[in-house]
Amino acid sequence: MDLVWICVIAGILGAAVVLYFVRYVLAQDQGSDKIKECSAAIKEGAMAFIGREYRTLLIVVVVLAIILAFVPGLKWKVSVALIFGAFCSMGAGYAGMNMAVRSNGRTCAAAQKSLNQGLRVSFRGGAVMGLTVVSIGIIGLSILYFAWHDDPSFLAIIPAYGVGASGVALFARVGGGIFTKGADAGSDLVGKVEAGIPEDDPRNAAVIADFVGDNVGDVCGMGADLFESYVETVIATMTLCTVAVSIGVVADIKTAWYLPMLIMAGGIIASIIGCFLVRVGEKVEMGALLAALRRGTLSASILTVIFAFLVIHFLHASLGLFWAVLAGLIAGVLMGESTNYFTSYAYKPTLEISQASTAGGGATIVRGFANGMMSTWPPVVLIAVAIIVSFHFASFYGVALAAAGMLSTLGVTLATDAYGPVADNAGGITTMVGLPPEVRERTDALDSLGNTTAATGKGFAIGAAAMNSLGLILAFAVATQIVTISPTGEVIVPPALSLLSAPVIVGIILGALMPPVFCAMTMKSVGVTTALIVDEVRRQWREIKGLMEGTAKPEYGRCVDICTEAALKLMMAPSILTIIMPVLVGVILGKYALTGFLVGALATGFIFAITLNNAGGSWDNAKKWIEAGHFGGKGSEAHKAGVVGDTAGDPMKDTAGPSLNIMLKLMSVISLLLAPVLTSFGGLI
Amino acid sequence: MDLVWICVIAGILGAAVVLYFVRYVLAQDQGSDKIKECSAAIKEGAMAFIGREYRTLLIVVVVLAIILAFVPGLKWKVSVALIFGAFCSMGAGYAGMNMAVRSNGRTCAAAQKSLNQGLRVSFRGGAVMGLTVVSIGIIGLSILYFAWHDDPSFLAIIPAYGVGASGVALFARVGGGIFTKGADAGSDLVGKVEAGIPEDDPRNAAVIADFVGDNVGDVCGMGADLFESYVETVIATMTLCTVAVSIGVVADIKTAWYLPMLIMAGGIIASIIGCFLVRVGEKVEMGALLAALRRGTLSASILTVIFAFLVIHFLHASLGLFWAVLAGLIAGVLMGESTNYFTSYAYKPTLEISQASTAGGGATIVRGFANGMMSTWPPVVLIAVAIIVSFHFASFYGVALAAAGMLSTLGVTLATDAYGPVADNAGGITTMVGLPPEVRERTDALDSLGNTTAATGKGFAIGAAAMNSLGLILAFAVATQIVTISPTGEVIVPPALSLLSAPVIVGIILGALMPPVFCAMTMKSVGVTTALIVDEVRRQWREIKGLMEGTAKPEYGRCVDICTEAALKLMMAPSILTIIMPVLVGVILGKYALTGFLVGALATGFIFAITLNNAGGSWDNAKKWIEAGHFGGKGSEAHKAGVVGDTAGDPMKDTAGPSLNIMLKLMSVISLLLAPVLTSFGGLI
Repeated sequence: MDLVWICVIAGILGAAVVLYFVRYVLAQDQGSDKIKECSAAIKEGAMAFIGREYRTLLIVVVVLAIILAFVPGLKWKVSVALIFGAFCSMGAGYAGMNMAVRSNGRTCAAAQKSLNQGLRVSFRGGAVMGLTVVSIGIIGLSILYFAWHDDPSFLAIIPAYGVGASGVALFARVGGGIFTKGADAGSDLVGKVEAGIPEDDPRNAAVIADFVGDNVGDVCGMGADLFESYVETVIATMTLCTVAVSIGVVADIKTAWYLPMLIMAGGIIASIIGCFLVRVGEKVEMGALLAALRRGTLSASILTVIFAFLVIHFLHASLGLFWAVLAGLIAGVLMGESTNYFTSYAYKPTLEISQASTAGGGATIVRGFANGMMSTWPPVVLIAVAIIVSFHFASFYGVALAAAGMLSTLGVTLATDAYGPVADNAGGITTMVGLPPEVRERTDALDSLGNTTAATGKGFAIGAAAMNSLGLILAFAVATQIVTISPTGEVIVPPALSLLSAPVIVGIILGALMPPVFCAMTMKSVGVTTALIVDEVRRQWREIKGLMEGTAKPEYGRCVDICTEAALKLMMAPSILTIIMPVLVGVILGKYALTGFLVGALATGFIFAITLNNAGGSWDNAKKWIEAGHFGGKGSEAHKAGVVGDTAGDPMKDTAGPSLNIMLKLMSVISLLLAPVLTSFGGLI
Repeated sequence: MDLVWICVIAGILGAAVVLYFVRYVLAQDQGSDKIKECSAAIKEGAMAFIGREYRTLLIVVVVLAIILAFVPGLKWKVSVALIFGAFCSMGAGYAGMNMAVRSNGRTCAAAQKSLNQGLRVSFRGGAVMGLTVVSIGIIGLSILYFAWHDDPSFLAIIPAYGVGASGVALFARVGGGIFTKGADAGSDLVGKVEAGIPEDDPRNAAVIADFVGDNVGDVCGMGADLFESYVETVIATMTLCTVAVSIGVVADIKTAWYLPMLIMAGGIIASIIGCFLVRVGEKVEMGALLAALRRGTLSASILTVIFAFLVIHFLHASLGLFWAVLAGLIAGVLMGESTNYFTSYAYKPTLEISQASTAGGGATIVRGFANGMMSTWPPVVLIAVAIIVSFHFASFYGVALAAAGMLSTLGVTLATDAYGPVADNAGGITTMVGLPPEVRERTDALDSLGNTTAATGKGFAIGAAAMNSLGLILAFAVATQIVTISPTGEVIVPPALSLLSAPVIVGIILGALMPPVFCAMTMKSVGVTTALIVDEVRRQWREIKGLMEGTAKPEYGRCVDICTEAALKLMMAPSILTIIMPVLVGVILGKYALTGFLVGALATGFIFAITLNNAGGSWDNAKKWIEAGHFGGKGSEAHKAGVVGDTAGDPMKDTAGPSLNIMLKLMSVISLLLAPVLTSFGGLI
């Protein structure tokens, strides 16, 4: 029996658990009519956005597939794989978000009964996303494998699956990011700041758009991001099979293919077990909630390590590969923890920002941004160590496998991640429909926990993107025959790839340029969307009689429409830039410059992503700390300064930063896909 | 006759013009007693700071020199050259700042007579710095040349001159940067924001510290920065002489040494002529003022190009070298212009920030930061083109020579730069002593022009630092024999320097980490200093009777002392990091990783420096545009948001950003200095 059947079984098991969770959540009480109404509005908005986004996407993907079909050196199978990858990603995103928007109201209702009930509903709602992503991911890869693994150009085809997933992820992250932060900032600006009404107040026309944004950005965007990382690490590792055989860490090509697939399969089983271990008692206490989630992820990690060891042992592969997997896994876990340290108000960095806020908004910004920049060191050092270890044991193949190790427990880590926005939405609905304070207290506890998991999740997503991108770059170098392996297992590199050759240096600095330009575009887009929302809410207050008095209802749908249109329009330019630039650099400056370009983009992209993410996260929590009654509490000058930080940080941490993940991966995987074309190509100049 | 005598003559000519300008400025009217008093206080504070900074520096430099004397593989001459370089830089900085603090009050007095008088005094005050730097620079290099050019290890000695200059520059930029922005932000926060008194109000105890800061940061710091770039480009080019000979662009080693020296000598003559061309009519008009300065710098550039052509022609060198020089020169000029576009309120990017300010401080920050990131593209593309062109014509030597071309007109560009803070100080004194509005109008015009030249100057300084750093990295690679030249002129690179080897990749990402961590440290230091100043000014208002009523005078000196102490203390950590890290990476990970480290730091450092500089500059001017009466003018909500941007931007553009220039250069030149030690060293792991 082909061992990939094990992956199929793991995928099916995952899908079965997904169904179980879906049935569980759907069986829960939907709550009062008001909750239902509110939840339905969110669902409607989210579905409308996703529908339009997917339609746009479909056009782009089909056009891309047609273009690729005509590129000399590529096959029609590439186009099919591309479309297949896009569909898998869209399916996973749709399923996960569909469930998330059905879980928010139910979480709200469950929290009326008990905290444990609330946690269980929201976590299982989120877990649907986590397990769907890994199940569809592994089954999709298995289908590709069974269909074409005998084709001699199998390794040139599979990257297309990644490109399809990448395209979806790009749109989901950039579009979703613009939507969510445009709505959020617009709603806050016009509601909290201008009109002085509370957050999530039903009189604010943008409030539903804000809730929708949480789902399309944080659930669907994050899911698509990690779906991409997940499948692409496997693809990169498989593509590097020849390296693994040459250096003798595996006996044959097939083993080199099995390894990442089976480690992922083990990770799925481990994740399922982890998901069932998340439960908590009745005391509303952050520590206990956090411990419950930690128990889930930690158990999954330990089980995955054991499974990985067994896989490597039974495939008679080198034990060095185990250390590579372990290095990746540990780096991933610690990266999440580091993010938590730099962004949670339980620790000094964020408290210092709250303190600095007493000196005004400028000081808040300076201190928070400095914190964001300082927070880059643990992830960079962790990645550096993971690279050194995995490279030492298994060269390029080891690095790619370390990335796979990092992502193997995705089922459960993404579940804890997607749980966040569900809890956040539930909290919002609680306020909006006016439930009693003890319910709000419970949903607040769930939400607060969600912020922590969102922070660690983001740190993890960035690390995964960086490792994955590096794996893809190495795969690109081997696929273009820039790097070859001698019969004795030595990696042979041409002088043209010297760090100090002009094309490579120019490639590096041009690549380094991409992340800031991309971030500038996405951040500006959020500003534009925000302005549109502000205008619309103001218009409704002006034109709809009785709105402020609570006798009339705002047109929530208009704000959702505006965000949708703006997001879909504004995501085009940065997306096209991301797709076009590697192609241009490859064609004009050649494959060596392109390698430099990808490495340069990785270096600054990783740094910018962490900086923006953690600066934003710490501003958010510094404000929350002030709101909790410190440094003058709500309404004080320090609070105003804290709000400035929070507003500034939102598009950084929820739009620009996360979108960078995709940018890095997409540019690398597109290059890999074009490897057959670029192999014998020196560049135009 | 040795052709280096021409350089000595050019240096002496420069010094003669300096003397002429000094006599001219000193002969001017010092103004009323109040002006004299104020100017004297600034002078006293600046001299006190510089004195203490230089004492600290001296200890560091001597300790460093002693350590180096004991490093196996280096010679005692290295230690001597290091101390000599430090003394030259300190001398240039001292002379320039000494003149600047004598010109501010005189500019004020001259502006009472006419605008042209004001421009002439302030410009000549600044020109002393510009011409002193280049004169001392070239004479210092000539002395080194005459003393030791017959020594076989001449090329291993001269980098020490650069390290000496670099050490001084680091302290001047970091220490000066912390001083100037700590004082500035503290004075604004407690005066403008808290007490509601105007900027530069004499009742504010921090106001003199603020003026002092302009001099120690913007004059002395900028001077030391560019002194370093100036001498190090020559050093890097000379070190690469073997490459030039091998690839046949020059006939012998001596010609390869003469070339950068003589091009600089030509640049000095051209700069002198340029300085004399700066004059203006009587109409107070920005356009005319700007045109006057442009006339000076442009004429100097054209003359330098002609001189460079003649030098290359008469030395029988390849014409390709001319194109390299030209590429560098043009890139430098355009980089300055690009900075101006992205930071001046004459253009769209900054106006959009003003507009965004109507939506609050958060929006200001997001839009300004996006603008800073977007502004990275022209400089990066310009540098990329300069590298491609210069590399094409003369390989490594060409790149280094392009950097020399960029810096050749430093005499006049630095003059226009140093003019800025003189005019700024003059404007401040005008307010402080209460001169009539028409004088303030003139000094405002001069100041406003100063902001433009400061912006272009900073863009130029960053570009120069990047090109120079790259030249030093290439020199390092040749000096450590990482890169060798075959007898046929081919550059031979070992596979170990492959972009995709683990040490190089790890080096790159660790290097990329340095700039954000360094910026985080310096920005946080500014915040700490600011808080100290705020406390002190508050204390004086509380304890000194009659201060607010204007019947008593504040203790200005205390604030200067506080800034001095804080700056000297807080500059140590980032400085030590900068000096230690390349040594650690070189020793632990080896010379290949170190090369990657330097390139990684260059890539992110360049990007961060531009982003921080231009975001800060555009926030500053966006606020000024609002203050000019747009979007509600002074006191409006938009203005408050603008102030947040300005406050946040100050430490970015005047402390962190400029300090990065030095960090990049210092790490590269230290590596070059340690090349003899690292040559046969593979790293500990």
